[in-house]
This record gives sequence, C-alpha cells and structure tokens, in this order.
Amino acid sequence: MTTDMPLFDLPLDELRVYRPERDEPADFTGFWTRTLSEAREFPAEPVYTPYDLTLPGVEVSGVRFSGWGGDRINGWFIVPRGAGGPLPCVMHYIGYSGGRGFPHDHLLWPAAGYAVFVVETRGQGAASIGSPGSTPDPHGGSGPHAPGMMTRGILDPEEYYYRRVFTDAVRAVDVAAEHPLVDAGRIVVSGGSQGGGIAQAVAGLRTDIAAALIDVPFLTHFRRALEITGRDPYQEVVRYLAGLRGNAERVFRTLAYFDGLNFAARGTAPALYSVALMDDVCPPSTVFAAYNHWQGPKEITVYPWNQHEGGGGFQREEQVRHLAKLFTA
Amino acid sequence: MTTDMPLFDLPLDELRVYRPERDEPADFTGFWTRTLSEAREFPAEPVYTPYDLTLPGVEVSGVRFSGWGGDRINGWFIVPRGAGGPLPCVMHYIGYSGGRGFPHDHLLWPAAGYAVFVVETRGQGAASIGSPGSTPDPHGGSGPHAPGMMTRGILDPEEYYYRRVFTDAVRAVDVAAEHPLVDAGRIVVSGGSQGGGIAQAVAGLRTDIAAALIDVPFLTHFRRALEITGRDPYQEVVRYLAGLRGNAERVFRTLAYFDGLNFAARGTAPALYSVALMDDVCPPSTVFAAYNHWQGPKEITVYPWNQHEGGGGFQREEQVRHLAKLFTA
Amino acid sequence: MTTDMPLFDLPLDELRVYRPERDEPADFTGFWTRTLSEAREFPAEPVYTPYDLTLPGVEVSGVRFSGWGGDRINGWFIVPRGAGGPLPCVMHYIGYSGGRGFPHDHLLWPAAGYAVFVVETRGQGAASIGSPGSTPDPHGGSGPHAPGMMTRGILDPEEYYYRRVFTDAVRAVDVAAEHPLVDAGRIVVSGGSQGGGIAQAVAGLRTDIAAALIDVPFLTHFRRALEITGRDPYQEVVRYLAGLRGNAERVFRTLAYFDGLNFAARGTAPALYSVALMDDVCPPSTVFAAYNHWQGPKEITVYPWNQHEGGGGFQREEQVRHLAKLFTA
Amino acid sequence: MTTDMPLFDLPLDELRVYRPERDEPADFTGFWTRTLSEAREFPAEPVYTPYDLTLPGVEVSGVRFSGWGGDRINGWFIVPRGAGGPLPCVMHYIGYSGGRGFPHDHLLWPAAGYAVFVVETRGQGAASIGSPGSTPDPHGGSGPHAPGMMTRGILDPEEYYYRRVFTDAVRAVDVAAEHPLVDAGRIVVSGGSQGGGIAQAVAGLRTDIAAALIDVPFLTHFRRALEITGRDPYQEVVRYLAGLRGNAERVFRTLAYFDGLNFAARGTAPALYSVALMDDVCPPSTVFAAYNHWQGPKEITVYPWNQHEGGGGFQREEQVRHLAKLFTA
Amino acid sequence: MTTDMPLFDLPLDELRVYRPERDEPADFTGFWTRTLSEAREFPAEPVYTPYDLTLPGVEVSGVRFSGWGGDRINGWFIVPRGAGGPLPCVMHYIGYSGGRGFPHDHLLWPAAGYAVFVVETRGQGAASIGSPGSTPDPHGGSGPHAPGMMTRGILDPEEYYYRRVFTDAVRAVDVAAEHPLVDAGRIVVSGGSQGGGIAQAVAGLRTDIAAALIDVPFLTHFRRALEITGRDPYQEVVRYLAGLRGNAERVFRTLAYFDGLNFAARGTAPALYSVALMDDVCPPSTVFAAYNHWQGPKEITVYPWNQHEGGGGFQREEQVRHLAKLFTA
Amino acid sequence: MTTDMPLFDLPLDELRVYRPERDEPADFTGFWTRTLSEAREFPAEPVYTPYDLTLPGVEVSGVRFSGWGGDRINGWFIVPRGAGGPLPCVMHYIGYSGGRGFPHDHLLWPAAGYAVFVVETRGQGAASIGSPGSTPDPHGGSGPHAPGMMTRGILDPEEYYYRRVFTDAVRAVDVAAEHPLVDAGRIVVSGGSQGGGIAQAVAGLRTDIAAALIDVPFLTHFRRALEITGRDPYQEVVRYLAGLRGNAERVFRTLAYFDGLNFAARGTAPALYSVALMDDVCPPSTVFAAYNHWQGPKEITVYPWNQHEGGGGFQREEQVRHLAKLFTA
Repeated sequence: MTTDMPLFDLPLDELRVYRPERDEPADFTGFWTRTLSEAREFPAEPVYTPYDLTLPGVEVSGVRFSGWGGDRINGWFIVPRGAGGPLPCVMHYIGYSGGRGFPHDHLLWPAAGYAVFVVETRGQGAASIGSPGSTPDPHGGSGPHAPGMMTRGILDPEEYYYRRVFTDAVRAVDVAAEHPLVDAGRIVVSGGSQGGGIAQAVAGLRTDIAAALIDVPFLTHFRRALEITGRDPYQEVVRYLAGLRGNAERVFRTLAYFDGLNFAARGTAPALYSVALMDDVCPPSTVFAAYNHWQGPKEITVYPWNQHEGGGGFQREEQVRHLAKLFTA
Repeated sequence: MTTDMPLFDLPLDELRVYRPERDEPADFTGFWTRTLSEAREFPAEPVYTPYDLTLPGVEVSGVRFSGWGGDRINGWFIVPRGAGGPLPCVMHYIGYSGGRGFPHDHLLWPAAGYAVFVVETRGQGAASIGSPGSTPDPHGGSGPHAPGMMTRGILDPEEYYYRRVFTDAVRAVDVAAEHPLVDAGRIVVSGGSQGGGIAQAVAGLRTDIAAALIDVPFLTHFRRALEITGRDPYQEVVRYLAGLRGNAERVFRTLAYFDGLNFAARGTAPALYSVALMDDVCPPSTVFAAYNHWQGPKEITVYPWNQHEGGGGFQREEQVRHLAKLFTA
Repeated sequence: MTTDMPLFDLPLDELRVYRPERDEPADFTGFWTRTLSEAREFPAEPVYTPYDLTLPGVEVSGVRFSGWGGDRINGWFIVPRGAGGPLPCVMHYIGYSGGRGFPHDHLLWPAAGYAVFVVETRGQGAASIGSPGSTPDPHGGSGPHAPGMMTRGILDPEEYYYRRVFTDAVRAVDVAAEHPLVDAGRIVVSGGSQGGGIAQAVAGLRTDIAAALIDVPFLTHFRRALEITGRDPYQEVVRYLAGLRGNAERVFRTLAYFDGLNFAARGTAPALYSVALMDDVCPPSTVFAAYNHWQGPKEITVYPWNQHEGGGGFQREEQVRHLAKLFTA
Repeated sequence: MTTDMPLFDLPLDELRVYRPERDEPADFTGFWTRTLSEAREFPAEPVYTPYDLTLPGVEVSGVRFSGWGGDRINGWFIVPRGAGGPLPCVMHYIGYSGGRGFPHDHLLWPAAGYAVFVVETRGQGAASIGSPGSTPDPHGGSGPHAPGMMTRGILDPEEYYYRRVFTDAVRAVDVAAEHPLVDAGRIVVSGGSQGGGIAQAVAGLRTDIAAALIDVPFLTHFRRALEITGRDPYQEVVRYLAGLRGNAERVFRTLAYFDGLNFAARGTAPALYSVALMDDVCPPSTVFAAYNHWQGPKEITVYPWNQHEGGGGFQREEQVRHLAKLFTA
Repeated sequence: MTTDMPLFDLPLDELRVYRPERDEPADFTGFWTRTLSEAREFPAEPVYTPYDLTLPGVEVSGVRFSGWGGDRINGWFIVPRGAGGPLPCVMHYIGYSGGRGFPHDHLLWPAAGYAVFVVETRGQGAASIGSPGSTPDPHGGSGPHAPGMMTRGILDPEEYYYRRVFTDAVRAVDVAAEHPLVDAGRIVVSGGSQGGGIAQAVAGLRTDIAAALIDVPFLTHFRRALEITGRDPYQEVVRYLAGLRGNAERVFRTLAYFDGLNFAARGTAPALYSVALMDDVCPPSTVFAAYNHWQGPKEITVYPWNQHEGGGGFQREEQVRHLAKLFTA
Repeated sequence: MTTDMPLFDLPLDELRVYRPERDEPADFTGFWTRTLSEAREFPAEPVYTPYDLTLPGVEVSGVRFSGWGGDRINGWFIVPRGAGGPLPCVMHYIGYSGGRGFPHDHLLWPAAGYAVFVVETRGQGAASIGSPGSTPDPHGGSGPHAPGMMTRGILDPEEYYYRRVFTDAVRAVDVAAEHPLVDAGRIVVSGGSQGGGIAQAVAGLRTDIAAALIDVPFLTHFRRALEITGRDPYQEVVRYLAGLRGNAERVFRTLAYFDGLNFAARGTAPALYSVALMDDVCPPSTVFAAYNHWQGPKEITVYPWNQHEGGGGFQREEQVRHLAKLFTA
C-alpha cells in the first residue's frame, strides 16, 4: 500500500508566517569571520583559460582559483563576445551532485547581457550524467562518513564539508569582483537547491551583494527537514545518525553553523526566492522559514503544484525580469 | 529479486554489423509523396512574433505555421542578434512528451553562429516539468488509444499520429528555408530520442538536407524494440496489443510506414549519429540497425556506459565541431 | 524509508459529517441545460446488433448510439433470454481506462432479472488488459494534454473531455428508456470509480432516475483529491499543473462544472453509495463530501479495511438486495 | 538501472518444439493410484445448500464435499434455472490465492447452457480482495514452510500440499458426476494459472474427462520455472531453498510427483491450452513443455503480447466456441 | 511522487505519556490460566542433544521439548564450557519469520557468563536466509489465512496461532528452570520485534521472571498499528480484513487476548525496553503504549533516528550492562 | 513489466571451467612491492586497548595500528579468555559499507579456539545500521568521485582508494603476526563480499598465509561485473563512467592493479571459496573466474539458490570444520 500526500507540509497560509526559532551558536559570527579571513590568507590566484570550443557569440574561459585552504576550484566565466564596459555578474552555484557542466549550459545570462561566473562545488560532479564536474575536495576527515557529501566531517564545525564549500563560494565573489569585465557593485548570487543554499550563505556572509536569486534552497532548517522528508540528500544525515547512534547532539551543534536560517537572518540584499509546495526534497516549510527570516527586501514566487523542480524555466524568466528591473531602476 | 544486466543488448562488435532486413511496404514512397503533397496544399503561412522577454544577445521569435491538414504548429526561431546575411539553420525536434520549452533552452546554436528553428511535436508538452508545450493535435481518431501518443490511430497509416508529426517536421523545413535569415542550402535536422527519430524521418523524406544530427533515435526498428525493452514509450504499443488482442498484424503494417529503418535507408545527407550501449529506452541494436542502413556519409559516436541520456553535453560539443568542419570545408 | 499510513484520511466520525463548501459556477445549471439540449439535437439513432457469440441464457446486443456532438458511442444491451414485459434497466458506466469488455462480464443484472445497458467511455479501453474498449473520442482540443484523459481540454469547460462523457451518459439513458424491453420508470444508474462519478453526474442531471448505485466515485471534490492523493488518475491533473505552471485558476474554473459535489447536491433519487476508508485513489473524504451533499434518500456502505477495490463482490450483492427491496416495495 | 526484456523466454518457433525430458519418479502412477484410492475411502457426502441471494436466472447452491483425508471442501454449483435434462458440466479450479468468490463471478457457463462446479483450493482465499475463500487446509506439516502454500510439506511427497489439492480436485469430479443435473460423460476441467495446473493434473489422473481448458498453467516444469522467473509464486520455492540450504534434492524429488509435465504426458482428453509469450509468472516455455507432451488432441492459443493475464475474456469466448463445437459435433 | 515522513508517529513528548485505554476481555486471565494449565498436562520431556560442530569455548545442545498441545519445539541451549554452578539464563525469542539459526548466532550471552535458551517460533524459519528454523506448527485451522502467520485461526482465540506460540514460550521457561545449569530464580526473557512481543507476553503470564529485555516489540496495540503502518507483518491482518470483509469485530475480539498491552499491564519484573522513533514496522506509539502500562520497574532506551533495526548492537551492550548491574546488586 | 531471471549468469557447468584471460599490467608486481615497502616505512605501532564492556568469556581489545601512509586503522582483537600459548588467528575483513561493529559480533572464532583480528576498511561504516565503523580515510583525491568509495582516485593507481585499503589489510597481518598470543604461522585471511575481495588480495600479496576463506568476493573481474550486474557497488563505477564520459580506458587501467583475478592468480595458500549462483551483486562468473585462476589447493562451496547472502551461517560452519581439519592434519 502506498499513500503519498502531495501537499504533505503546512498549508500555504501557515507557511507565509512560519518563522521558527533559530538555533544560532554564540560564536557563529566569529566562526565565519575567522574562517573567511584564514581563507583569504591564501591568494586567490585566478587563472582564466580560453575554452577550446569556440562559440562566436560568447567568450568562454575556464576559471581556476584558490578557495578554502588554498585548494584550487574550477568554474566557467562567460561574457557576451565583444562586451564593452564592466557588466553585472551572476554567480551561479550548482545543485547537489552536479559539476559545472558545459559552457553551453550557461548561456542565458550572457544572452541577457550579463557575465556569468559558474562555481563548482568541490568533490561533486563525478557521477552526474548531465553536469560533469572537475574539482576535487582533497580532504578526508577524522571519521567515516555516509555515502555522499552531507556527513563529511559532520562531528566538528571546523572539519565540516560545507565550511569549505561556503568559503569557496565567498572567495569566488572576491575573484569575480576583480575581473575587469565585472562591475563589482552589481554581483548577484544565484542557485537552486544546494546552489540556492550556497547563494543564501554567501548573501549572509557578505554585505556587498547586489541581489540574491534563491530557488528551493537546500541546507536550511536542518532539524525539520530531517524529520519530515524521507528523501536524499537530507536523509544522508539520518542514515549517519541511524548508524553511529549517539552522535545527534554533536551533529546538530555542527549543523547550526551551516543552517540557512542563520544566513538568511543576515541577508540584506534584495532577494527573489522561489518555493514549490509539493517539494519533498527541500520541503516548503524549510524554505519559508528562511525567507521569513530574511532581513532585506524580498519576494517569493510560489509554485503550488510542483515538486523539487520548482519553477524551472518559468523562474528563470522571472529572474531575468527581476534583474532587469533592479539594474534599470 | 532484481537482476538487471546493464549491457543487455548485442555486444559492440555485433552491433557494428547489425543490419536487419527491413519491412518496407510496397507503396512506402507513394504514401509519403502523397502525404506531403496533400499537406503542401495548405499554405504554410508562417507568423513570426517577437518574444516578450528581451534578451539582448539573441533575436527570438515565436513561430507558428501550418503543418499537416493545415493545423497550426508552434516553435521558436532564434538567431544571434544583428546577424548579417543568411545563416545555416538547425532544425531542432523535441524528445517525447516535451514541448518547445523556453527560448533560453535553445541558445547553443545561436551562440555558435547559427539560426535555430525549434519545432513542437503536436499534442505533446502538457505535463513536461522542464519543457512546456503549446501545440494541440486537434484530431481524435477512429478508435481508442493507450495513454500517450504512440497508439493514436495506429490501426491505419492514414490516421497514425506520426503521419501528422513527420509531415509537420517536413513542412517546418519548408518554412525555415523561406526565412530571409536562413541559408536554404545549409539546413540541418537534429534531435534526440523522438527528436532523433523525427530528424531521421525528415532526412529520409527530403533530399535537400545539409546534415543530420541524430541522437539515440526513437521510432526505429519497432518490432525488435517492442520485444527487448520493457520501458516506455515503446511499451505503450505493447500495452495496446496486450489489451486489444488480435490487432498485431494491422499495427505492424501501420508502423512499417513510420519505421526509422525505412527512412534511414533513404538518408543521403552527411549524418552524425550517437548511441548509448546501455540505453534501454532506445536499445543500441535499433540505433545501429538504422545507422547501418543509412546511405549517406556517416559517423557514429558510441557511449558505452550510458543509458538513454547518451552523450548529453559531450555530444552537443561533438555536433558543434562536426558542423563547423562541415560548413567550413 | 517508506512509511505509508493506511488510514491516511479523516477518521470515520469526522467523515460522517464532512460537508465542505461547494464551488459552483453561477451558470452551472445553464451550462448543462444548454449542453444537453445541444446534444439532443443529434438524433440518438440507436442500432442494436445481435452479438456473434450465442449464449442461450441471455440476449446480447451490441448497441451504438449518438452521444455528444453526434459521435457514435458503443455499449452492450443484455436481457435475460425470453424476457416478457419491460424490465428495470441498470445503466452501467465503466471505471477509468476500461472499455465495455465482453458481454460475459455483465451477466449479473440479467441473472437478477434486469436489463443491463453498458455504456463505453469514449476514448478509453485501448490498453485495458481486462476490459477492451471500442469507442473513439474523435476530438483533439485546443492545447496539449497530459497522458490520459483527465486534462483533455481542461482549460475550457466547453472543451473539457468529461463534458462529452457525461453527455454521452445522459443520452444513453434516453436511448435505454426508448427500448421496448425497458421500463423507463425504473432506470438505475451505476458504476464504480469513474463509473461511479459518471452515474453520480447523470443522477444530478436527470430527475427521472429510479436509483443510483455509486461505488468509490471518482471525479468528485477535485481540489482536495489533488492535494491528498499522490495516485493516478487524479495526479494527471497535478502533472499538468506542474508542467504548464500558471494555469491553476483556469483549470479549477473548468473542473467546477464537472465536480461530483455539484451533481450530488442535485441528486434526488434513492442512492446507495459505498466507500473504502483506505482508498488512496478516491479518498474517503471526497466520497463522503458528495454523499453528505446528496439530496435524496441515501445509504452508504463503509469498508473500513479496503483500498480502492472497495466492497467488490460484497457490494455487488448489497446492490442486488437493495434494488430488489426498492422495486418490490 | 532497470532493463526488462518483455520477450525474455524462448522465441515462438523454438517454443513450438520445446519438449524437454521429464523427470518422472518410478512409482508416479503407484503414488497417485494409492493416493486417490485412499481418498475415496472417505465418502464424499456432498451437501448442496441453496444460496441465500436469489438470482432468478440461475439456480445456485453452495456445495460442500469431502476431499483428501475426508476434509470438507467448499464450492459452488450453478445451473441455468429450470434446466431440464443433464447438462455438460465445467469444473472450474481457482487461481493462486483466490477462493470461490461469489456466485455472480461464475455466470458465464450457466449463460452458455452448462452447469458449472467451482472448486475451492484448500487454505486459499483469505486475503484475496476479489475472490474470498472459505475452505481451510487443516494440516500443518512436519517442518516450517515459506509464506504461501508452495512449500507446505515440500520435503515429502506424502505431505506435500498439492497432494491434497489435486486429490480434492479429482474428488470434485466424482461428486459432480453424481449430480442428477450433470451429464457424467461431458465433464470438462478448466482453470487458469494454478487453476490450469489443477485442471491439467485432473486430466492426467482421470480417463473420463470430456475436455480440458488449460490457461497459462502453473505448477508445470518446476525446475525451469524456478530458474527463469523471479516472480511469485514460483519464487516461494526459491526462497525456501535459499533459506533451508541443502534441501534441493529432496524438494525436487517431491515436486516430480506434482509436475504438470508428468500429468500432461498422460492427458488424453481434447485440450485447449492458452499461453502468453510475455508471461513472467508462468513462463511460456513451461506451458509449451506441457502442451508438447500432451497425448490427446490439442490446440493452443498464443497471445504474443500478453503477460500472465493471457487471453482474458478473449480466451473465455474461445472456450465457449470450442465446447460448443465439441459437444455439437 | 513519494513523500515519506521519517517522524511519522507522535512526537517524543507525547509518546512519553501515551497510555491508551486497553481493550481487555473479561475472561483474559481465565483464558490464559486455562490455556497454560492444559498445556502443562503434556509433560515437557526436554531432550538435549550435543551439537555436532564442536566449539571449544561453549557447550551447545539442541533442545527439544513439548509445547502447546504436546507439539515438539526446537531450540538451542548454550553455556560457557566448563560452567560451574547454576547460571542466570536468558530466554531468547525470535523475530518474525526467523528460526533458531545457528549456535554461533547466540554466543553473546555465554560470553557474558550466562546460559542462553533459544526458543523457536513454531512454523517459522523456512525462508529466512539468515536464521533457518526447524519447528513445524502442525495445525491448520478452521478457515483459510493470509500468507504468513498473523491470521492463522484469527477468528477464534482458541485457535489463534499466537495462543500456541505464547504457550510454547511459557513452557520453555518451565524447561529452562529445570536444567541443572540454570538458576531458576534468575531467568530473563528477551527478544526483539516478534521476539519482544513474546518476551512481553511471557513476562505478563509468569510472576517468576527476573528481568525482561524487550526491543521494538511487535504484537502490541494492534488496532493503532493496523491503522498507522502500511508495512508487514501487521499488514497481513489488514489484507485479511480487506479480503474477508465483515470479520473485523471477530478479529479484534481474538486479538484482544493477545495484545501486548494486556500483557504489559501485568508485567512486574524489571524491564528494559527499547524503541525507535522512525520505526514503521512497530510504530513507537505502540511500544510506548505498552511501556507506559508496564507495572514493574522499567527503563526505555530511545533511538530517535532509527527504524525497526532499533538500537542493534548498541542495545545489546545496554542489556549486558543492565543485567550485570541487576544480578550484581 | 518486470522480468528478472534468477539464474542470470552462466550455467554451473560453464562456470566450473570459466577462466577468462586476465588483464595484468606489466608492472603489477612492482607496483605492489613498492606500495607495500613504502607503507612499511611507517612503523605499525599497534596499540591494544581493553574494551570497556567486560565479557568474562573473552578478552577483547580495540586495536589501532598504522596502515598505508601511516594512517591509523581500527579493529578488534579478541581471544578466548585465559588462552595459553599462541593461537591460530583469523584476520577478518569487512563487507562494503560496514565498520568493525561490536566485539560481540565476532565471537565465533574465539569460541572455536582461535584469535580473531577484525580490520576496519578505512572510511566505511558511518551509515551502517548494523556495523558501525570508526576509521577515517583522511585522503581526498585529485578529482571528484561518485558517492561511495569505488571511484575515489580511480583515474590513477597511485591514488586509488583500494591501494590504501589493501595495504592496510596487509599491514594488519604484520601486526597480528607480532602479537604474543598469535601463532604467526597459522594466520588465516577471511571475509565475504568486499571482505572476501580484501582477503583474496592479501593472500595474493603475501606468501605466509595459512589459509584463505573467501566468500562471494567483490572487486574481482571488474569488466564483466560492470557489464552484467546493475547493482551496487559495482554500479558506482558505471555511474562514474556514465558521467565523466571518456575516462573508461584510464579507469580500467587503474582497476587492473586491483582486480581480484590478478591476486587469485598469485594465491598459493589453501583456499575455501563460496559462491551463490543467483548472486547479482557479485555474479558467480566473477567468483569462478578468480577461483579457477587460484594457484593453491582449493575448494568451493556452491549455493545454487542463493543471492549475495551466499551460504550465511552454513558457510561459517563449513569454515570452522575446514580450519579444524587443516590445523589438525
């Protein structure tokens, strides 16, 4: 017998006001200030390499820079060919398990007149049939982890995988801001699912972001997510807790440093969120919880009949319009 | 117990020479000549409408023209903004159940310097979370059909759904060839899965195609496909035969007019195929069967470890290189 | 992890009083009056053809008559062989995806001394391994639809598939009432699932029905159904809304003309409903919602431990007893 | 990854001549002669009880008689109401896990002018949502068994469950032959799946059967079935062998006394078989193996595109025609 | 669409006080007193047979004794080799579908210095790939049952399968208490899932138990379990009720004699329970319901992130420590 | 449709002689000689820590030693309490994804009079609900990998994960051999699945092993395994190849250094293998391929009706008997 309720989370009117208490460690700010300043001791040393397949309409470079611990991170940097002055630049962070894919996967923002800076998530993208990746995460950890990335180093905030990832993402903005074709005052962070979670974190860690485009974000409101969705990747953590019984307290202590709720509560840039009410990967209550904590100007597009695919191309167009308005006004 | 053999079809060395007998109706040519000339009695009357979301890098129009029976068919026509003289034009046909999606899903060919003409498959695209469609198939039929499109009108070649679809696809080339920005001598047909099957059919029905890019084609070598893959959409036909027992002979008589083998055997344009050896949706033997019958110059890219996703972005780049070489030489 | 709660809907005591607001369009009555009167402009022209397999105990005819738009609809008409005067006649409507099947699938009512008139649901029955069908729905529509019948023409009440189906069903009663072996004052509508939804609609659209036998009805209380069951066929609509985002308002406007709640609220014949408390195809709250709105005399048999199979043969016997009492009293 | 080949068994031309060696125990005949004569020491003592729901068209009795070991077995006996002289009688054996269901499930043969005698399979029918059963199998056994009936007593032919079942089935014919409304010279055995296996066994154990109607028979060619189908109920035996490792030799020794191949090789009545080429419950090679061993006149209907549902209602009509011809000629 | 909520049952703070009304038959005590005294009329006649594989560290005997109705029940009796005086003895009851397995599956308690007495559950263990069994349940019943053991004889408390099982389990304690190497005053009952349910029943039926170790117990709070979990084995009962509609009242009357709630309410020994909050086989509310009714001293270990595996080896160590403390104090 | 053939691999008589060509790199021996001698430059520095839960029958220590690269590896060392002189020692390697679990999971060999040395597989055991692990693999790699361990560093033999694992396993024997309670001349390697693959590798890399107990080994005959089983963990590699298309040659070059075939061909110790003919995780042809290459004295136990569970406890007893004979003779 299989009974699956599509609208399994709270009803929309409750979601609109759902703003749970946050569990924020006392040294949250200190932890991140220290983390980022340590990372910045490694010079970013970006290298831009022209891509070997010439597309006349765009200028494509592979980009490689130093992120957390000086580890080299890969991405793409793409601008409309013949772009004159500095352009707004959209930072694009990737969904779970994907890599940067191909330049031709990222032609929308250049077509819209922007630069796009695609940032890989270290260690991901090996088994993605659509978006191959190339950046290793050259760190093991002090204990075993469940298959996937969610529990690597999860017993200690210092070692946790997403400490490295969020830091890479922040450093990528540093790098983009230095590029002669980028207008450093108009850098936008964007992404869906894990990419949305990363964008949200970057927007909470920097004050110089021009806009945030956050779709169905992952890595947000961990405790509720673990309890109400049986789907990966949140379930990686549940499997870890089911195996190594007795670690829950330490795990939640670590996660508190990485919970999107705490980044959202620091977000001041104008934000455009999207959420899907039947999303059982990143449940809508976890998304609204972050959105309702966001400090800056904000809008949210609600897709009532969608699962984790959210708005798809519809939302892409919303974003193009949103930025056009923002940067024209 | 579940045992699934990834390499379930013939081994590669047998595939390379697999060239089964074709079951071609005596009046195959006549059927199609008549079908197309009847369709051409309806003037195409293409209407190009500028798209409401402006992307500075490209010029996007919705296009609408009359296909089979005069029914209006939707698509996109996209060129690099400010294109000077006539461009090669890539006709893009869509995979099963998808619609034309969004213009921003089709930016590769314009970025590569070509026009792209995206053609919807009538009646499809309603429930596609990624690629919404908009073209109805305003015809019922003289009997019930299984859910999906594969068995609409399947008891009679005159009524069969793909008669209308292939005709629309041929007419789309007529329309493209008339566009002032298109170089009618450099029209390329392309598509994956159903789109590959349509491209293959068009290339078999016209002699003026400059190149064919055919990925993991569907609608090819029906009998073998029905027997060796348990997956949709081929299984739609099996379910129909399982329900309306006793119709197999009529069904296969109809399908013979639409079998990719018979179109491939007429293909004379330079073709770039791709095939995946673990593809259980469009099994590799059905693809090689067509490829081995193809009359024109041909190459095939083999992806030994992939399923129906085939080469994905890798193959996209192969195609860009392939056309560049073709149109430069 | 898979947790499926068998009793996923409201508890029985809440179901017994669950009577939600109905969403009835202002012109609901007008819409249907006009629809039926337009349909009646096409003469029904029933043709009865003796079935080619002789069964000595019953007299079987294939029946064919004109329904909506004059389209020809198929069915069976079966009476006990040698029946003397006019008999009560049970109209039997079919569950989703089935056709009329074989005469020998419908021998209960003749054995019980009644005529039975089996009415096909246009366009269904092609892939039913148990109940083959033969009636086409010779209409496409003005947009694509999701696989299945639920979303054909769903953007416009005039075009919606079930407008044609319900009209056919009403016309079938007109035809039955004219048959010399039928007692027009004792016509019963019956069916399970989709067949129950159709029977319910007919009973709401006619005032001359002697009894209604409605099992686990489908097509009832759409909004709740779409939100609480993840199973087909209701999910066809969700997939449509998930793909063609932004159409929900129009879709629900259309569905309001076809919602069983609005037909039930007009039902005045004595009704025997059945419902299963673990039914995740047609959830019990949607059934009770209709039942609680029914205007006429009514009873409901509750199967607390069943899913969509409901009472099965047990309910068949309930119905035989129920009609016997009704027609004897 | 899931690859399922619909046509997983031998191709049809090989099936037509597939006639494997049989593994017949030396005392097969002795075993069954003794078994039946022991069973006949218990008087059958049939009791016919009029059914409490009156259907004017038929005369229905519950029947109860003593089968193996004197255990009481339930069934239905149904004749057209007012039948004059003795009628041909169709013995109907039931598919796995079902019971006798309701009288109204068995109206075809009476409508065709025959008596039908429905025989329950002891111990089955408790959890059948469609066909409830009522006959216990009041025997445990000398060892544990896997869930289901297939391995009850499987270590010893004397104790094996189907020894009791086949004996009940033979005794049911004894009972039917005594009924005043039955023409003992025109008794037909019939059934599908398990019912087909039982009918086949009865036809091999008696010489007075007028015809055998055997659809997609189960319990036939055990060794091949266990090796090529992963589906229940054959897999019950595999699970048993997987658990109680080391018992295979004894198990196959037992099964040899119950293998349909050995009954088919004794069948002399005219037989109408049916087989489905995509049947992964009772694979076609196991059916053809029996058919090709059958000694009497025989025909087989092949359903090339069906699974275990086989011909369904189509085959039912074949059977009506087949018997009509047989009993008229 | 699949949405599975890991924390599907009540939250922990409600579980801690969840103590539902019990449904206890008036003659519950009488029923069991009579049952046990009848069983004790059969002498237990234990036979200990040295195991044929010598393990120098332990002394292993197969044990065989008479349980309910004098039926012979198998088990293992294992002590540390060379044990001097009488030892505490842990009775170990087995989880659903398993048998006693191998002596080497039961080495923990001997290593901890105790005797262990493993008791088979009659009729189980045939298809267990890990724990083969050998004890038959030589009783059929007066009606058919669903595959599995849960519904054997379920219409009558006298005939119900677990009447025999619980009686065997009580008799096993009688047997153990007589063994010269067992200290009859320090007999512990233990088990997980079905084994936990049996241990709980024994502890409710005897007053001489030194301790009870009850993990994720099955057979407890039947009505709630049937309604909130869709998983086997509880679902065996639902399938039975779904098939043989109309038996629910009798079934629940029977189950009331076997419900763990009624045994827990009689438990006076010190008990160590364990429960898993994501257990969808034996839902946590059913476990807490029993625990909260337990009369004696009690503790419960909560595994918040586990499913039916519960604490696994972690709980095994808890139990070793628990008994050490208990028997030292 | 799901058709799964239980006996999907070669028939037993072909398996018995299946001895495929091996793909052995020219410097295979050099690679491993160098690898091991580099590892031995790190002193093993074993630390034995008495376990905190006292079990009177055994003496349990946690053990920690330096493996590849000096990384610390955890395990258990368990002997019968009060063991006199040096004992034979069984090295036990763990199946995929498990850790060392609990001491009480490893009581068989001590009960049989041996020492057991349980060796963890670095990086595994975090999400194992039955066998928690504790040893990290503190190395990332130079590229991303698919979830799981199979593709970590797979582009380069120097970096490949199993280089570290096999080296740890060899070093564990070094450590065991030094323990005063171990008879260095009677060290046995053992394991099932991944543990069997590791044991096989160790037996191929050392000449001083007294016996090898290898059950259903994994990591053997990679190419065939990848092609004929669709199950994890072999499929991790297929997913990697499907994502990062074009790496197959490098991947197979790496795997050749780790393929069990090449270790088996060097195995000279007496070996007891086991294989299951329906094993779709480690297909029987891959096991027989290794067995047929084994150089030393050998036996294989065939479980014809089992899947990857193989012989389970039956094989455990075989092994006890096998060693008893070996060490007595």
